[in-house]
This record gives sequence, C-alpha cells and structure tokens, in this order.
Amino acid sequence: MASLVSISAPFSLRVLSCTSDHSTRPRASTTLPTSLALQSLRTQNKGLSLVWKPKRRHLIPSIQATAIPLRQEASTQPTSGSNSTSNGAPNRVRVMVIGGDGYCGWATALHLSQKGYDVAIVDNLIRRLFDHQLGLDSLTPISSIHDRVRQWKNLTGKTIELFIGDICDFEFLAESFKSFEPNAVVHFGEQRSAPYSMIDRSRAVFTQQNNVIGTLNVLFAIKEFQEECHLVKLGTMGEYGTPNIDIEEGYITIMHNGRTDTLPYPKQASSFYHLSKVHDSHNIAFTCKAWGIRATDLNQGVVYGMRTDETAMHEELSNRFDYDGVFGTALNRFCVQAAVGHPLTIYGKGGQVGTISSINRSIFLLIACIFRFLIQKQFIFMINGSLFPEQFEMIHSFPFHFKSFDQFICTLQTRGYLDIRDTVQCVELAIANPANPGEFRVFNQFTEQFSVNQLAALVTKAGTKLGLNVKTTSVPNPRVEAEEHYYNAKHTKLIELGLKPHLLSDSLLDSLLNFAIKYKDRVDQRQIMPSVSWKKIGVKPKTIAA
Amino acid sequence: MASLVSISAPFSLRVLSCTSDHSTRPRASTTLPTSLALQSLRTQNKGLSLVWKPKRRHLIPSIQATAIPLRQEASTQPTSGSNSTSNGAPNRVRVMVIGGDGYCGWATALHLSQKGYDVAIVDNLIRRLFDHQLGLDSLTPISSIHDRVRQWKNLTGKTIELFIGDICDFEFLAESFKSFEPNAVVHFGEQRSAPYSMIDRSRAVFTQQNNVIGTLNVLFAIKEFQEECHLVKLGTMGEYGTPNIDIEEGYITIMHNGRTDTLPYPKQASSFYHLSKVHDSHNIAFTCKAWGIRATDLNQGVVYGMRTDETAMHEELSNRFDYDGVFGTALNRFCVQAAVGHPLTIYGKGGQVGTISSINRSIFLLIACIFRFLIQKQFIFMINGSLFPEQFEMIHSFPFHFKSFDQFICTLQTRGYLDIRDTVQCVELAIANPANPGEFRVFNQFTEQFSVNQLAALVTKAGTKLGLNVKTTSVPNPRVEAEEHYYNAKHTKLIELGLKPHLLSDSLLDSLLNFAIKYKDRVDQRQIMPSVSWKKIGVKPKTIAA
Repeated sequence: MASLVSISAPFSLRVLSCTSDHSTRPRASTTLPTSLALQSLRTQNKGLSLVWKPKRRHLIPSIQATAIPLRQEASTQPTSGSNSTSNGAPNRVRVMVIGGDGYCGWATALHLSQKGYDVAIVDNLIRRLFDHQLGLDSLTPISSIHDRVRQWKNLTGKTIELFIGDICDFEFLAESFKSFEPNAVVHFGEQRSAPYSMIDRSRAVFTQQNNVIGTLNVLFAIKEFQEECHLVKLGTMGEYGTPNIDIEEGYITIMHNGRTDTLPYPKQASSFYHLSKVHDSHNIAFTCKAWGIRATDLNQGVVYGMRTDETAMHEELSNRFDYDGVFGTALNRFCVQAAVGHPLTIYGKGGQVGTISSINRSIFLLIACIFRFLIQKQFIFMINGSLFPEQFEMIHSFPFHFKSFDQFICTLQTRGYLDIRDTVQCVELAIANPANPGEFRVFNQFTEQFSVNQLAALVTKAGTKLGLNVKTTSVPNPRVEAEEHYYNAKHTKLIELGLKPHLLSDSLLDSLLNFAIKYKDRVDQRQIMPSVSWKKIGVKPKTIAA
Repeated sequence: MASLVSISAPFSLRVLSCTSDHSTRPRASTTLPTSLALQSLRTQNKGLSLVWKPKRRHLIPSIQATAIPLRQEASTQPTSGSNSTSNGAPNRVRVMVIGGDGYCGWATALHLSQKGYDVAIVDNLIRRLFDHQLGLDSLTPISSIHDRVRQWKNLTGKTIELFIGDICDFEFLAESFKSFEPNAVVHFGEQRSAPYSMIDRSRAVFTQQNNVIGTLNVLFAIKEFQEECHLVKLGTMGEYGTPNIDIEEGYITIMHNGRTDTLPYPKQASSFYHLSKVHDSHNIAFTCKAWGIRATDLNQGVVYGMRTDETAMHEELSNRFDYDGVFGTALNRFCVQAAVGHPLTIYGKGGQVGTISSINRSIFLLIACIFRFLIQKQFIFMINGSLFPEQFEMIHSFPFHFKSFDQFICTLQTRGYLDIRDTVQCVELAIANPANPGEFRVFNQFTEQFSVNQLAALVTKAGTKLGLNVKTTSVPNPRVEAEEHYYNAKHTKLIELGLKPHLLSDSLLDSLLNFAIKYKDRVDQRQIMPSVSWKKIGVKPKTIAA
C-alpha cells in the first residue's frame, strides 16, 4: 500500500540529507534562521527523560515537505510543553497525535499545541470515509484537516505537522517516526465505535485488524526508532465490562489459596471494538515487560461535550459532534434528540426506572433496606426470583454501604463519563508525567458515574427549562449487556496527577442543548435510532441507513 | 485471494442440487448405493444435541468433488463417533479439524476418524511453507497431505475429506462449512510457535492477524451456517503466564472489598503468539455470551511424543517431529539433542539447578525451611537481595505447604506437559461432552508439571542407560520470562470427563530416544540452538539460519 504524506501550509522544505552523523538531526532547512534553532529541537529533555536516540542512519537522500513552527522556536516564554535548557532556550516536547483528526484527537492536538508542545497529527482520515459510507454526518460542519491546521496557524502562529496515511502501513509509520522523532505518541488512531464493529463480519474483522495491527506497528516503531518515546494509548472503561466487584485501575491484588499476587484486572469486553482494546492492552503490557516500552493506558469513559478553549476559537476549528446510532455517545445524542423533539432513546430495561424514580424515594429506600436486611438474614431467601423478580434482583444487588438513593439507582446501565475538556487535560497530564521505562500504567479516565436514566432525567430537566418538550422512549437494547448490575470504578490516579474535573452541570447542559438547537436543521432524524444489533450481525456486507 | 478446494482420493462426485427442501441435505450422489445411506448422514444426533440446522438455501447449482466414506455408511458397528438411531442406522458426528496437517492436528484427525467420527481436514499447509522458508525440516519424513489421507483410506477404509485453503479467506471457509456441515470444529489452525512470532515485525503481525482473524471467521461461520456446532479451540497454558497464585481453569472467584465475582482468570502472555491466543479467548468468550456459541477452550501444555496408535500404523501416516529452535518443544528437542550428542540446551538460569540437585536433598530442605522461617519472622529481613541473592530468592519463594523437594524444585521454569496421545484423547472427550449453548468452557489440558531441569535430568538418565553421553549446557534465555517462580496449575476437569493420562515414563523416554536415534542422520545441528531473541526482534524481515 502506498502511503501519502500530505503537506500543511505554511511550510518549508526540509532536505533529509544523506548522513551518518548521529550527533545531529539529519536535516537541513533553507528557511530556518540559524542552525542553533534547529539544534534546540534535538537537545535532550532531561527533566522528563524524553531523549531522542537515533538508532537508524538516514542513508537515502530524499526531499520532504513538512511544516516547522518558526515563530515558536524564537519564543523565550516557557510553556507546559517546553523545559528551559541551561542557556534558557526552550526545549520542546514533540508529541505525535495519531488519529488527530477525530473527535478526541483534534481537541487534544489543539490543546497540546496551545500548551507549547510541538504537535504532529498522523491520520488516514478514515473516520470521514465512514461517514460517507454510512450516510452519516457530524452535527457541526467541520473543515478539512488541511484547512483546520492552516486556520490554527493563522490564529495562533503555531504549526501542526501533518502526516496523512495509515499506521497499519509500517513503511508510512516508520517514515513519520523518523521524520518527526516524537517524545510522546498519543494513540487515538483506532476504529472507536462499538456499534460500527457489530455491523457485519467485515467491519468486525476490520476493527480488530486495524486496531491491533496499528498498535503493534506503533510499538515496533517506538522500539526501533524512538525507544524513550512515551506511548499514551487510549483504552476504554468498556474493557472491564460490569463485574460484580469494584473496578480498579488496571490491576487487582488477589488473595487465593493463601497466596497473593497483583495481576491485570480481568477483562470482559462486550463488542468487537471493546475487545480490540483489550487485545491492545495485553500487547502493550507485554512489550513494556519485554522491551522496556513506557506506556500509559487511558481507559476512558464516555466523552460528552463539544467545545474546548481551542476548538471554540474559530468555526473552522470546530470539532465534530456525532449524534447518530453508530458513533454518537449517550449524552451528546440525548441533547440532539431533545433539541429536535425526538424522544430520548433509552436502550432496554433502563426505561422502567422512570417508574421507580417517580415513587417517593424515601419509601423505596426504606423498603429496599428492609428487603436487603431480610435477604441477608436468610428470612426471605426462598422467594428470590419468584416474587416480582426484576425489582427483587435490583434490591438483592443493593450495596449496604450506599450513601444515597442515587448510588443505588446508578446500578442500572451505569458507566463513567467525562467532559471532552477533561480528555485533553488528562492526556496532557499523562504526557507531562510519563511512565517509567518498562512500566505499563493504567488510568481510569472519567470523572463521574451516571446511569443512562440519570442522564435522561438531567437532559429532560434542562430541556424543560429551555421550553423543550422532552420525552423518553425505551427501545430494545441492541447490545448484549447486563442492564442491572453493580458498578463502582476507581478513578483517582489522574486526580492525584492534578486533574481538575469539569463536572456535569446545569450550565453545561444548557450550553450543549443550545448548541444542538443552533444546528438542529442539520439533524437527520433517520440516523438517531440504533441500526445495529449485537445478535443479528451477519456475514453479508451491510449498508446502514440505505 | 482465491481458495483451492482440494480433493482426496478415492472420491465420488456430488452434485449440490438447486433445492429449497430443508428436510434433506441438498446433495445427491451418483455413487451412493441408496438414498437411505445419505439420509443417515443427516439424521439429528439427539444424544449429543448436535443438530444440523440448515440456515441457508443452496440456490446455486454447482458440482463439487469430495470424498464420501462409503464403507463407513454401511457399518452397523456403533463407535464413539456415532449414535444409533431408532432404526439402528449409525448417526455419525461430523468433525472439522482445522490445521489437520500439523503435529497435533494430524494425530487428532486420524484418532477421530478411527473412533468413527466423520472427519474433514481444513488446512492451508502453511506450516510446511514455514519449514521451507526457515530452512527447517521435521525429524521424521512426512508424506504430503494427499498421500496421507489416501494411505489412511487404503489401510482402514475410512475417508477424511480435505479442504485446502486459508480460513482467513472467509469465502473459502464459508464454502467448507456449507459443504461439510460440521457438528464440531476442532481449531488447531493457528501459527503456534512463540519463537516464530518473535522473529521479526512481519512474523509478529502475521501471527496475530492470522490467528485472531482466522478464529473470528470460524466464529462467524458457526453463527451463520451451523449455530449448534461445538467449537473446540486449542489455547495454551502460556496464556496465564506465571502468576504467584494457583492457576485455575479459565476462571477465578475473587473476593474484593466485601463483594465476590467469578471472573476470567487474568492473562499474562509472554510472546506475540501467546498473546494471540489470549485475544482468541476473549473473542470466543464474547460470542458465547452474545450469540450463544458453545465453545471449549483447551489450554494445552507442552506436547511431547511422536506416536499415536494411528500414526504408527504406516510410515506414510508418520507425524511430524520438530526439534529445531523455532518449532521444537522442550522434551522432544532434548531427545534429539541426546541422540546426536548435542548438549541439552537449557535456557537461562535453569542450568544452575543441576548444582542444587546434586547436594543432599534433605540438608537443602532443612536449610530452606530454616531460612524461610527466619524470613517470615523478620529475623533476616535485611539481607534479602544482598547475601547470595539468587539462592535467597529461591528460598524466599519457597511455599510453606510443600510436600516434597520436587515440589520446591519445580518452581524453576515449570510448565505443564502432556503426551500427544493425551492431546487426541482430550479433544475427543471435549467433542463427546460438548459445551452448552452460550457456555465458554476452559480446560487446562496437561497431565504433569515439570521444570526444564527435571526434564533434562530425566533425559540424561534415560540416555545414559542407552549408552549415550548426555551433557547439558546453559544458554542465554532468548525469552523474557520469570525463570524462578511459583507454579501450580489446576487440571482436573478433563480427568473428571474420563481422561486416562499417559504419564511420562522411563519406557516412553526410551522409545522417544530410540526413535530419535533412528532418524539421527536427518538432524541438522545448526537448527538446534535458539535463533530468536525476545529483546532483539526488529522491524527488518529476518531470514533464520541463512
């Protein structure tokens, strides 16, 4: 497969010279003011131990067009992405954002660039192709990646390099690594939709092949070309499934038959997409151990929100916003549904909770406590599963150490959620505090837990305040998942690193709803309902929404 | 990719007729004696709940050459692979053996055929290509797959159908499924060497892509064409790694923060090959839950031995026997090394144990107990890691509940082993006792635990008895693995199903050594040493033994 290296403007021509001198970067530029400026790019960043160690000789002379942040080099203002050297020259950390044209990737690339990192986006733009193939579109109009980085340069003077190609094509990836020499790689470059992976056999196979092989290639590229490079890999909270015990961050200490070990937390993923992330995690963990790769796995929750400080600067910087049944995430989808007067679609049993929420909370809580006590004491052991079994099961799973009714109610299709402004913050924190060589570090990246019903209730409340008539509807759950389950996932490690969460607030919901209302004429209501079934996936190629 | 469906002789032509009649198999044969004989093939096997449920109509008329076990159909002798119907006609279980040309696959295919199952081999023969590419060869001369099945037919009258092609090519796999309509699939069809997967990037990627996508295709084929078909998948004990707690069979019950759940046993694989099996396990578990697939995962230990009753019947039925550094397994390799006067190659620290074994066992045991006691009581906590650190570490990991010196010594590079005669027995047991729909069952398939040093000692003793001068040599461990570790893996479920193990005996070792001596002129000593390094794997395609 041929790989295409695209060019972002404004750019200067760099000649990759034929050299065997490892003490300097094998580049010369006709536009750089001094050779000193170039040298500053390659100085070792001892503070973060992010060292560029050339391992390969560039023996083939070639001409490559790419972008250099000229104005940045001259800056003497230290920023998050730079450490001052002894002579005061900034020593910038180079971050490659794979998948930097996507929802989280674009926001992250801009945030890191704004914070003073040297950023390159690596992307094959296939997410845009998915939209074309499935007949979907972002709620927000989005510019081409070339216009995006051009506008960013115009507004801020900061340059983002572009490498357009497929990381499954190792030749392309290797050239990108050798050219950009990243100190950190943020890897968003995967097919990221569970429903997409469950459309048909070919999409299932594509998802696993693309995600697993792409990540393997990144690991090999780091080993071969940038062994000190820190891999920041986006995982998902969905890797854990919904176990009946607390979810820890990556590892769990198990006592068993009188012995103890701390082992990888057991994984129970529930789509071919989530499984691909589990496979990635295992592969990365192995290479950390075998090769000394330094890696951080960010098991991210469901992301909501639209604006970050950077994407809000200009409409050409707008992020994509998916509301469809394939790529849209729960809260974002609900806001669009509320805006266009479509009932909020709650998958499966969740819908029943509306009834429960409407009875007096205190009475329900009291009844639940009494039932739970009687069950514990074996007084009503016999009726388990016979007397109103669904409610009983809920009560049965009711933890004794609850703090509120909400904590109980959140055992229904509960997941971790976070604002996209926290996604970019978390990635920056991981880069600024890299893993040690050989360390496979796992952070659970979310800020709050909500059940789908809680989200629906919040959107209903906020929508009503704005004069919208918000209804909910229960649709058959297209997924195969436990709908009522215990869920308590730890998420303290990023807080300890300094994460200041943007918690879901009334004002954010107002702003999300107003945003959805602004673009409501762009909504295609045919895309809202779930069109993929976990059970009905077949081997014939399927065209969605045809 | 084009798929080639090959033909085994003797064969008859079957015409896949254009029919929509689901009550009969859509086939007619010009050579079958009666239509009743054909009917017996399709009678539901209610005893095992292996029911052929046609889901697709064969609407395209085509002519396909394939083999039919004519003499078998007439047999009235009930065998393991058949259940009698009310009219006494045998109702044969149809087993597809994917990878049936390989070491375990070939022995299994013959064993099942001999036991009365209708067997088809699906194989792309790529294992033979690996030998060509790497300059390796089996110790034993092996016939072509076509000659093998022809000879089997000559000797026993039993026919094995052949489908030559790649299961990663779904079109080929789908046609094989629709033609053979298996009641059970035994899936050996994977790249099965850890060193092979660690040769270079392209072999690592090939291994994961081939194994993961092949298995995904098998799962989709079962869902689409044979939803009652039982998948018997070969996993590996290497999926578990070497945790510091007992290894259970697939699942472990964890108590954590006052709650309890039974979860998949945590996986810590240590090569791209072993990782591919972990990925498979997760994918299969998901499809059992989501689609109701019935699956048995056989986490097999290291297989040794050569002959089964069937492969010993004729030299054209000979199994392959690998002794090289890439595909050779420990005990088989040791026997060949002993036969040709090459020192037994023990990887890493293991070699030191020879010294320990030679001192008086009782004295060592006593010292170990005293040390362990003092450590427990914190009396000599301070010297940990400073005073003779290696021996100390061994003593430190010494479990209190030992039964013998051997149980202690087996904490050094210990693995589970089994005779190839038990491999074929285990697979048959799994087929005869299928998993329930939706059940993902995991059996640990080995019969004994040995350390590499114990194996070397056994081979040395047996070789000396045969007049061989057997020496051992310690070579740098090419793998990245804990060399001293706790190891206690459960393996009771197959025993409960009726497995009668062939334990490693002096007579078997004698026979293996004599066998190696018989073929010693075929040994290429350049292939014996490990040629692959876990740490040195790179991105450039590597030619082994060039």
